[in-house]
Order: sequence, then C-alpha cells, then structure tokens
Amino acid sequence: MKKNVLIIGAGGVAQVVAHKCAQNNDILGDIHIASRTKAKVDQIIESVHEKKALKQPGVLEGHALNALDIEATKDLIRKTGVQIVINVGTAFLNMSVLRACMDTGVAYIDTAIHEEPGKICETPPWYGNYEWKRAAECEEKGITAILGAGFDPGVVNAYARLAKDEYLDKVTDVDIVDINAGSHGKYFATNFDPEINFREFTGVVYSWQKGEWQVNRMFEIGKDYDLPVVGTRRAYLCGHDEVHSLAKNMDGADVRFWMGFGDHYINVFTVLKNLGLLSEQPVKTAEGLEVVPLKVVKAVLPDPASLAPGYEGKTCIGDFVKGIKDGKEREVFIYNVADHKEAYLEVGSQGISYTAGVPPVAAAILIAQGDWDAKKMVNVEELPPKPFINVLNRIGLQTCIRDENGDRELSF
Amino acid sequence: MKKNVLIIGAGGVAQVVAHKCAQNNDILGDIHIASRTKAKVDQIIESVHEKKALKQPGVLEGHALNALDIEATKDLIRKTGVQIVINVGTAFLNMSVLRACMDTGVAYIDTAIHEEPGKICETPPWYGNYEWKRAAECEEKGITAILGAGFDPGVVNAYARLAKDEYLDKVTDVDIVDINAGSHGKYFATNFDPEINFREFTGVVYSWQKGEWQVNRMFEIGKDYDLPVVGTRRAYLCGHDEVHSLAKNMDGADVRFWMGFGDHYINVFTVLKNLGLLSEQPVKTAEGLEVVPLKVVKAVLPDPASLAPGYEGKTCIGDFVKGIKDGKEREVFIYNVADHKEAYLEVGSQGISYTAGVPPVAAAILIAQGDWDAKKMVNVEELPPKPFINVLNRIGLQTCIRDENGDRELSF
Repeated sequence: MKKNVLIIGAGGVAQVVAHKCAQNNDILGDIHIASRTKAKVDQIIESVHEKKALKQPGVLEGHALNALDIEATKDLIRKTGVQIVINVGTAFLNMSVLRACMDTGVAYIDTAIHEEPGKICETPPWYGNYEWKRAAECEEKGITAILGAGFDPGVVNAYARLAKDEYLDKVTDVDIVDINAGSHGKYFATNFDPEINFREFTGVVYSWQKGEWQVNRMFEIGKDYDLPVVGTRRAYLCGHDEVHSLAKNMDGADVRFWMGFGDHYINVFTVLKNLGLLSEQPVKTAEGLEVVPLKVVKAVLPDPASLAPGYEGKTCIGDFVKGIKDGKEREVFIYNVADHKEAYLEVGSQGISYTAGVPPVAAAILIAQGDWDAKKMVNVEELPPKPFINVLNRIGLQTCIRDENGDRELSF
Repeated sequence: MKKNVLIIGAGGVAQVVAHKCAQNNDILGDIHIASRTKAKVDQIIESVHEKKALKQPGVLEGHALNALDIEATKDLIRKTGVQIVINVGTAFLNMSVLRACMDTGVAYIDTAIHEEPGKICETPPWYGNYEWKRAAECEEKGITAILGAGFDPGVVNAYARLAKDEYLDKVTDVDIVDINAGSHGKYFATNFDPEINFREFTGVVYSWQKGEWQVNRMFEIGKDYDLPVVGTRRAYLCGHDEVHSLAKNMDGADVRFWMGFGDHYINVFTVLKNLGLLSEQPVKTAEGLEVVPLKVVKAVLPDPASLAPGYEGKTCIGDFVKGIKDGKEREVFIYNVADHKEAYLEVGSQGISYTAGVPPVAAAILIAQGDWDAKKMVNVEELPPKPFINVLNRIGLQTCIRDENGDRELSF
C-alpha cells in the first residue's frame, strides 16, 4: 500500500490533480505540489482551500522545483516521504522525473509522452525512443511506472482494452475520437500548453494500419462523426501518443486517432505553420537574438488555465472499437462527456484540463489501493480497466457505452 | 553643385539605389555604401560590377557602419567627402542620420518617415513628431533635407503637386492608390522589411478628410479601383506617410491612401495581429527570454531581397486627383506602371524595391544639378515636380496620365 503524493507541475491539469487528490486524501495521504514557479503552486493550494476540497485534515504543501534537476527531485521525494509521483509538468520533464522515481523507488504516473525540445514527431513507436528504454530496469527494480494515464492517452487505452476483453472476440479497428465542442470566447487559444499542443501537429501523422505505420499529412484525412451530446463533428486523423502503445497491445488491430478541429483553428494553425512560427528550431532575429518561434507563439497566446472562467460547452472523447463478436461484425463506442462549466465550478479548471487531470488521480488511487501497483512499467491498456472505470465514475468522469443495445452508463 | 553620395542601408532598396547611382556617376561622382552588415554591402558592390552599371570609371566603396552612432556617421561623411546622403536603411535610423548630415553640412534624402522601435502610429501629423522638429534648424543652417523621396511617399507627392499646378484650379480630393499585382510565388512574404511593413498596419488608419484627421480601422474601408494595365483591384484605406505632409500642403483637400491587398494577405495579417504576433512590445517566454514578437515574425519570413529572382507581374501606383477646372469637376489619374522582372534583370531587385529606390536617386541628381538643392527641410510636394518627373522618365520610372483626353505618357 503506497501513499503520499507529489504532483509535479502547476498548470491547469495540475490544478485538477491537486483538487482531486485533496478530495481523496483519505486514500492518498499527504499532498505535495512542486513546480518551477512557486507562485503558481501557491495559487493552486489557495484554490484547494477555497473550495474546501480536502476530504479530511491533512498535509498540503507547495515546493519550488526545477524537475529537470534529478537530484533536486530525489531530495524532495525523500524529504516529503511521498510514494507516488504524478508528473503533469511539461512533457520535456518525463525522463528526468522518471529517473528520480526509479532511483528513490517510488511509483511514477504521467499523462503524455516524453519530448525533447529540439525534436518533434520522432520514429514510431514514440515510447520506444524514451520511456520503454527504462522498462527492463523498472521491472528489475519493481518500480511501478504508469505511462500516459490522462484521458487520451489513458482512459481511451482502458476503453480499448475493455472492448477487447468484454465486447469483442477479435478487434479489427480502434478509432479514438476527441471532440471539444466547447467555446472559450477568445480569438484563439489552445486548451493545454500551446507548445505541446502545436508540436503534436507540426510533424507527419502516424497511424497503425494493416500491421504497419502509415504516414499522412495533418488535416489530410477528415471524417464526420455523429456523437452523443455534441452531435455531428468533423475530426481529422492525427498523430497521438496512445496509437504508439495500442499498436503493440491490440493484437494487430488498426489504431487511429481523430481530433475535432473547426475551420478557424485549422486556418490559424496553417498560417502559423506555413510561416515557420510553429518551429521548435531556433531562428535568429536581425538583432542577433536566438529564439524558438514556437515559444514566442506560446508567450502571446492565452494561458490555457485562464480560459476556465468563460468556458462553456462539452467534450466528448471515446473509442469506436470494431471487430467480430460471435462470428458477426460488431462496433461499440465507449466514451465520456465532460462539461467545461461544471469542471470550473468544481475545481476551477476547464473541461480539457479536467479530463486530463482526473485520470492520473484515479491511477494514483488504484496504486494506493494495490489494484494497479504493477511493479513495472506499463501503458494503461496493460492494466485491468474495470477498477479504473469504476474509480473514474466515482471521482468525476462517467463512462458510457453506445452499441446495438442503446446508449447507457457503464460500471462494474 | 553638390556631389559624391553616401548610401546608407544594404537591403533591396539600397541595391537599386546603388545601381542607379552607378548608372549616373557622371553626375553624382563617388559612391559609398554603408551598412551594419558589411557582407551585404559587398554583395551590392559585386552586383553593380557584374551588371557593369558604372557609367564611367569612378569610386564605389563599401563601409561597415552602425548608423545609430551619429559620430561614426559624421566621421564617415567627412572621411569620404560625400555631399549627399541617401538614407535607405531601416526607418529607425532617420533622426540619427539626419543629425549627422546637419552637423556636417551635407544634403539628406530619405524614403520613409522616422520610427521609434517601441512606438507605432503616433499622433498625426507623423512628421511633426520627429523630422519637422528639425526644420527651423535646417533652414537656419541651409541644410537640404528631402523627406520621403521614394515612390510613396515621394513620387506620389510630386504627382499631387503637379495636378494642383497643371490640371486643376482647386483640388478637393487626393486618393493615392498603390497596387502590387505581382506574384512572388511564396506562401507569404512582404515586399520590404516585414517589421516596417506590418508596423504600417497594426495601428489605426489616419486620413485627412473635411479638414481634420479621420480615424478608421485597418481593412475597414475597401474600394475597387479600375487601373491601367493591372485591371480592377481591391484597395483598402491605410495610414501612410504622405498623407501627413499632403494634409498640410494641398490647400485643405481630402487626402487618402489606398493599398491593394489580396484575401490571403489579409488573412495572414489578421491571424498574426489578433494573436499579438505583430506587436512591437516585448513579451517574455516561459523560459524568461524577452523578445519582440514582430522581430520573430520578421526572422521567419523570406528576406524581401530574396523574392526578386522569381517575381513576376506589375505594380501600378498613382494619384487620383479630383477638383475643379474652369468651373467644372475634373479628375486626373497620374501614375507609373513598373515590372518586377524588368527590374530584376536591370538591377537585381524586385519591382517594389525598384519603385522605392529609383526616386531618391532622381532626387540626388536634382540636388547635384542644383534644381532641388532647397537649403531647407522639405517634403517632395514642396519642390517643383516637373524636373523630378523628367529625371524619373529618363532613369527608369515613366510617368503617365489618364484623364478625359485618354491615357498617355507625360514629360516636360
């Protein structure tokens, strides 16, 4: 039984994680939050107190930490006595934080794949370039490391596994669809770190089809999806983390990821990309200053956390899983619908942060309870999905299913 | 009789100025070129030699100079013995270069209004904020300073004066129209320094109408113009230098400036502006680097000088001047049509640089010959227009007129 949690990061997702840990501190124990900018940590702690989110009296402490500094992170882990680290800082930190966890023997959870600042869209499978290189060492040392335990990747991986276990004899297609039908009222904003958001789309699009990696251009392939609550929405084939582990773990089924985009997003993205402003490679100004254009774009865009108060509407994220059941073709859609405004009222964050921040807390609860304390490195689809879905149902993200028998809530 | 010319700047316009000075070095004497980046100066000198542009054997020398350093500029003026300075460097240099000319007693010519890096679109009339503050001192010292002697401002100011002198008894409206119907084949590029180009359009739009300054938004007012050679083109009311002197010098006539824009330019501009990427004010990246977004946009866009080889099509720039002649309404359109490819073949620059770079050389020739050696600070419409038009006709920019009597070339 592990307990006491260190949250790394202080953005919109970290805010949700902090609130949800606080609401479950009877299970999780002490809560520590660490980020480069201590003032942002303090704001999160203040918000947790404001909403009286702590289920029972307990430790809730903030720390300044540069999590690229492995020794500093190890010191903080030891000093605080945490046994579970939830890394929701920038994706550039993963390998450093993972190293600190492996060296101190504590459990590691993240929600997005590791990235190196100067590289985008590396060779598939992406996990193979960084995280999976530590898999053998984790297993040897008995380290629990749960990769990609946000919503997507994360919950959608569990949905794919659930469909395989429960609803199909053989899976042929996994189509993950992520639609944000909400509106933030700004001219343009990304729903999480703009740097990471844009990096997802400036490279080529990898999908796993017919047993091999397929390459497409961004916005090359669009498709209208008719979805519960949000209606018919246009989504585009994109590269995304979960494709890179599901390709390995779904018995050879095709795996594609689709994200909804409006024409306005596509236009802004296209202008910025074609001009070279989304580049992760530095350019030199006429005055001789070296600067990465993408970091300047990030600097002028609204902070995703600032979108929360005015955000309205819903998200719908789920898996269309197709295959054979009892000799016949079958398709199920397993999904969640979240509401931006409800998220804001509960934890002070918008719906995208909410859907990304609740699942790693569910994973931490499952580690604390022993269900998911795997003692090795795993992607979410390698863990039993039912306890995860049950905890998610309880702490704020209801799973539903739509199939030939209708549309209904799921629990186990 | 003044002679020997110092060209300040080494961009596309400076290239044209150098070639045209060389072609007229029998009148202008020694030619010196100075810029922060000596390598760019050397390239221009090499190009002049390649095209065998020097009319007669003579001095053609390059120098490294930070023209914000007034003492260094004065030293170079004295050392080279130049009597005419053509300033076609960035608009941030004007007041420094002008000061150096005033202190050394030499003539000054520029092609665009002074700008301060941290300010855009100041109080009209723009010349009143900087240049005109030196007018009394210039007159006292007998310094010839010709402001805004490019095409627009510059030639279009002379066209307005010509219409007032020759074709109308009373002018009621001056509408300057600038259409670039050429194509550079890039996704997006500006035809001169992107920083200066965008700064023209990120503020409000000032026009002089009914005896006062009118304020509009950029792209608020569009109008289709039917023009010689380039056909019907949509142009938008913009702020521009020449409005700010013509407002004073056209006996109270309305003065408006219209520039042609395609939908693609407007879209890119709108995206960049709305995101804050055209701001002249620094922002701070997440890593703490202070950077001016507009300078990064400039860094990623093609160098305007690089557009020349592939540029095709024509420009049409001119003045619709309306008023009363012999008791009846009359309108004349005085204009020039230039060709991008012809410009490139002659001087290695595209048409926009050509139309901006030829006129200051015509002005220098007129100073050298005594016609325009005003011994004070003037805007172009305060000088006799006919000798200017005649020199322009001779050195590469033919003036035409379209009125009730048809469409024809003009010379005097």
